[in-house]
Amino acid sequence: MNATINPPKVKVSELIAQALEDLGITHVFGIIGAGNVHLYEAIARHGYSEIICVHHEQAACMAMQTYYRTCGKLSAALLTTGAGSTNGVTGVVSAWADSIPGIIIAGNENSRFTKPENTHRMWGVQGYDSVDMVCKVTKYANRVMDPQQAVYEIHKAAHIALDQRPGPCWIEVPMDIQSNRIDPETSAKFEPPCTMSQPTAQVRAQVESVVAALLSAERPLLWLGNGIRLAGAEKKIAPLLELLGVPALVSWAGIDMIDSGHPLVFGRAGVYGQRAANFILQNCDYLLTIGTRLAIPQVGYELSELARAARIDVVDIDPQEVSKHQARAQEMIVCDAAKFIDILQQSLHEKVITAKLAWIETCNAYQDQFPWVGPEHDDKGGFMNSYRFMQRLNTHFKKDQIVVTDMGTALLCGHQVLQIANGQRLMTSTGLGEMGYGLPAAMGASFATDRGEVMCLNCDGGMMLNLQEMQTIAHHQLPIKLFIFNNDGYLMIKHTQNALFKSSYVGTDRASGVSCPDFSKIAAAFDMPAFQIRHWDECDEVLAQVQAASGPVVCEVFMHPEQLFTPKLSLVAKEDGTLVSPPLEDLSPLVPRDMLQQAMIIGVHEKSKSL
Amino acid sequence: MNATINPPKVKVSELIAQALEDLGITHVFGIIGAGNVHLYEAIARHGYSEIICVHHEQAACMAMQTYYRTCGKLSAALLTTGAGSTNGVTGVVSAWADSIPGIIIAGNENSRFTKPENTHRMWGVQGYDSVDMVCKVTKYANRVMDPQQAVYEIHKAAHIALDQRPGPCWIEVPMDIQSNRIDPETSAKFEPPCTMSQPTAQVRAQVESVVAALLSAERPLLWLGNGIRLAGAEKKIAPLLELLGVPALVSWAGIDMIDSGHPLVFGRAGVYGQRAANFILQNCDYLLTIGTRLAIPQVGYELSELARAARIDVVDIDPQEVSKHQARAQEMIVCDAAKFIDILQQSLHEKVITAKLAWIETCNAYQDQFPWVGPEHDDKGGFMNSYRFMQRLNTHFKKDQIVVTDMGTALLCGHQVLQIANGQRLMTSTGLGEMGYGLPAAMGASFATDRGEVMCLNCDGGMMLNLQEMQTIAHHQLPIKLFIFNNDGYLMIKHTQNALFKSSYVGTDRASGVSCPDFSKIAAAFDMPAFQIRHWDECDEVLAQVQAASGPVVCEVFMHPEQLFTPKLSLVAKEDGTLVSPPLEDLSPLVPRDMLQQAMIIGVHEKSKSL
Repeated sequence: MNATINPPKVKVSELIAQALEDLGITHVFGIIGAGNVHLYEAIARHGYSEIICVHHEQAACMAMQTYYRTCGKLSAALLTTGAGSTNGVTGVVSAWADSIPGIIIAGNENSRFTKPENTHRMWGVQGYDSVDMVCKVTKYANRVMDPQQAVYEIHKAAHIALDQRPGPCWIEVPMDIQSNRIDPETSAKFEPPCTMSQPTAQVRAQVESVVAALLSAERPLLWLGNGIRLAGAEKKIAPLLELLGVPALVSWAGIDMIDSGHPLVFGRAGVYGQRAANFILQNCDYLLTIGTRLAIPQVGYELSELARAARIDVVDIDPQEVSKHQARAQEMIVCDAAKFIDILQQSLHEKVITAKLAWIETCNAYQDQFPWVGPEHDDKGGFMNSYRFMQRLNTHFKKDQIVVTDMGTALLCGHQVLQIANGQRLMTSTGLGEMGYGLPAAMGASFATDRGEVMCLNCDGGMMLNLQEMQTIAHHQLPIKLFIFNNDGYLMIKHTQNALFKSSYVGTDRASGVSCPDFSKIAAAFDMPAFQIRHWDECDEVLAQVQAASGPVVCEVFMHPEQLFTPKLSLVAKEDGTLVSPPLEDLSPLVPRDMLQQAMIIGVHEKSKSL
Repeated sequence: MNATINPPKVKVSELIAQALEDLGITHVFGIIGAGNVHLYEAIARHGYSEIICVHHEQAACMAMQTYYRTCGKLSAALLTTGAGSTNGVTGVVSAWADSIPGIIIAGNENSRFTKPENTHRMWGVQGYDSVDMVCKVTKYANRVMDPQQAVYEIHKAAHIALDQRPGPCWIEVPMDIQSNRIDPETSAKFEPPCTMSQPTAQVRAQVESVVAALLSAERPLLWLGNGIRLAGAEKKIAPLLELLGVPALVSWAGIDMIDSGHPLVFGRAGVYGQRAANFILQNCDYLLTIGTRLAIPQVGYELSELARAARIDVVDIDPQEVSKHQARAQEMIVCDAAKFIDILQQSLHEKVITAKLAWIETCNAYQDQFPWVGPEHDDKGGFMNSYRFMQRLNTHFKKDQIVVTDMGTALLCGHQVLQIANGQRLMTSTGLGEMGYGLPAAMGASFATDRGEVMCLNCDGGMMLNLQEMQTIAHHQLPIKLFIFNNDGYLMIKHTQNALFKSSYVGTDRASGVSCPDFSKIAAAFDMPAFQIRHWDECDEVLAQVQAASGPVVCEVFMHPEQLFTPKLSLVAKEDGTLVSPPLEDLSPLVPRDMLQQAMIIGVHEKSKSL
């Protein structure tokens, strides 16, 4: 008879640390607290995942996003109980909106309190039902109530986060579960379900329909989104375009998937789109969108006016997104972008493909006639125009330049003007579009590249919402170049107020109740060198110094506090005072009607004629 | 025949601005965005409610709390769509936990998107289902889908926020509803339901039982919580105590309801309680709690050990809270604190009441033997002890001193040591206990007193989470004294790590991955004067200067980065190494066993004997 040997018991936190290693998670972001102290200790002692301590949990959940987008690796956010987890919510919704995978491990009180049937306002000392709070803004949210299930849930979360359309997953682990010791052999093992890897007959038939449309169209157009990179297929884009000889547009999130200078890539259409790109979009006769959810900032407010002479086929991995625009879409193809491109290329095999040279010439003519930066971006009032500044900044980019942007000027001018070459990156929050995304996004990208260099474009207003993370950057001496476009407040909202109320501002600039500090002084407080750019004659020299800096640096760029964001799809007042919402090609400031007529192959929209 | 006259139509935002006036809401806090721009404009033009522009929405929802607690008036938080509302969540959960009323008006996208059946990840441009997110952490959360209902919902939210046990209410108003114009006559009117103002026979019977217990007990004790102030009954406390001749303890949230020097008020018991208060609590033979939810930090981890020789009667307006400790409670009286005190006093009428003089003498003896600051708070390593510092700070208080604290040292030492006189205030977040509460709490209290003076106690770690609000303070030049206890990181968690792991720290100080900036430089960045206190010999002079300052000022207090928080209920290792969780009276560092025996009228607990 054998003596019964008690197997060695291991703390659940240690098993989770091991699970993170098994998932290849080398970086986690968070703040320690009573609700995750066991996890911190176990992860640190395990020694595989580096813990990056931030100063607000929202930053952890934002850094996680650019970390993944930069290096393609999962990371995790470690939140403590109570406010530790509520603080993370904004970053979680943001990751959800932008389809970025990540695991959020949230602490909570002792599991005897963490039960949905506990209707007390507080669970234990500081707890609440975090799973209930985030279940609609995550792909998966669950609470570990059984220590044997902890590792299972982490692996399951990782699988779901990455599977199909990616997104964040939230696993709540009560304190006592974290510190519970179990026989590791009893730990449940997650086996990812078998997924059918063969495309369905329906998809194959749809691809045939796409091929026929692509080949027969006179003015076909591809619109490419970040779903392609999420599917790991960004390298398939150039060969596909070259095989087809068809022009393409990119979504803002997809800008950095392909060299902006590629002869078949014609920029970015949308509400704040480029004129040429919008004309190309609106005049195409066949539009194939791949991996972009065709959000309102892309397609405008009136779907019936979108590429209105075109058949539209939509490829998206998410059945919800595919059918969102069913009023306009013909083929709604639920398919992973990589798989779709593969099947498409197979289907094109042995087909006679003729590049659409006349159409490409037309597209080039649009670009020549309507350059990204034009007379509407001339300097005013002694200030540099921020679009022109972006263009200049672009000339200072390094070969492997990583750029992240916050909202406002940084977002709009950056995404309208910056040329991104192969090997360079441009990232922002296009879904939730939360102010404050810039700093933690820069941190995430830097840690994803072994503390690499990142250019972070911010505005004064947005800088404030994660100001505390300047210390995280300073602590690690990350080589992050913090540009701050100073426009005295919230410039986008000032324009909204001008458009809607024609009244004085409220809560948008210093005079109307909100101000920002002197960012050179702020830089000094974090021991970062600070530069200021006010005029062109100092611009190149300062930019060179900023780019040469080895540690964190602040560079404030002063712009006109009323500078317009143009071109932009805007309401326009007719002579009789009535307001018209023009179609997507008719951006403000309006071009002369004869110029519009000449540009509109499919004809001028009735609404535009009235303007 | 009369001609049909079209009644003038009014924008819903304007009706909401009027509703705020009708509710007497003179201050609102928030950040403008596309999702609330109509509300901002209408409120500003209406001219009744002042809009305070903060730099992160969490601060709006925290400022709202101290605003109410200071002046007893409702305020509102104005959040925009998307991240504007997710950013507010922490402050909302905090208000929920601490039973503070407030109205959160959150914007959202156009109402054609804001429907629960919309399963797209984003609603419209940046929206999501905020009502779903917060419904479990608010008293009421609803979306206005009909413009006629907007004013109704604001009034309903205000009613519910204040009714019974108070709390935050969240009203989501989609953008198009905000800008919709309606005939004001068609706007639905909210009529608060009639509530029964007469106490039930059950409550009257329970009060009789309380009276009998109070009069017959040898060592009766009252434990008074902030529910009394929430019921507007704080002025009834002193007369009640004096009528009864019974000692009382106060919860942390209830400290400032009655002069700390009142001869029948014997301090604050709890896990981080005062020794004398804990002995009084644990030795009473009758405990009557009024308007305190008896949270874990008050009662400890083992309910059966709480005042274990006493009968416990609980008075709370919330049936959930009343029955929470039903294993120990006898009378569970669901009643408003003000009403309860009134009935109690009526019931005492014509009763023979004998003050419990022997018991009061015992309580005084406890206080003499175990002063709030004792030898365990001696200075160490050349640093001032923070408990002693609080005591000194106390001598610099003004007659109407308002103090708010953040967490950590500021919370623990402040609530253990500060004596609060009539007319002075002490406020913090006792429920959620979120780091970063201090700054916005100071702002709320200042605006509640016409930009009055506030002393704000913070630590270095917690300062970071609302650092951006230094600019709001600077913008308005609020006379807020920002004290910062610098202990190199998160001191409470360092102690947890010491207790649990005996290992080196992880993520709790500069050496282990997290650091804070030089706060004198931070002060300079916001153009605030900065002081530093390192030694006693400079203490009084600097404190006098800080208190004399007319605008915002920073005062950093350097303390030992390992200073203990004592006394504290802690796990204790026996000689054989096993860990014991002592009863609430046996705080660490443990007093000699004979001293304990002498102090324990009801006898020493078996667990304490073993230590």
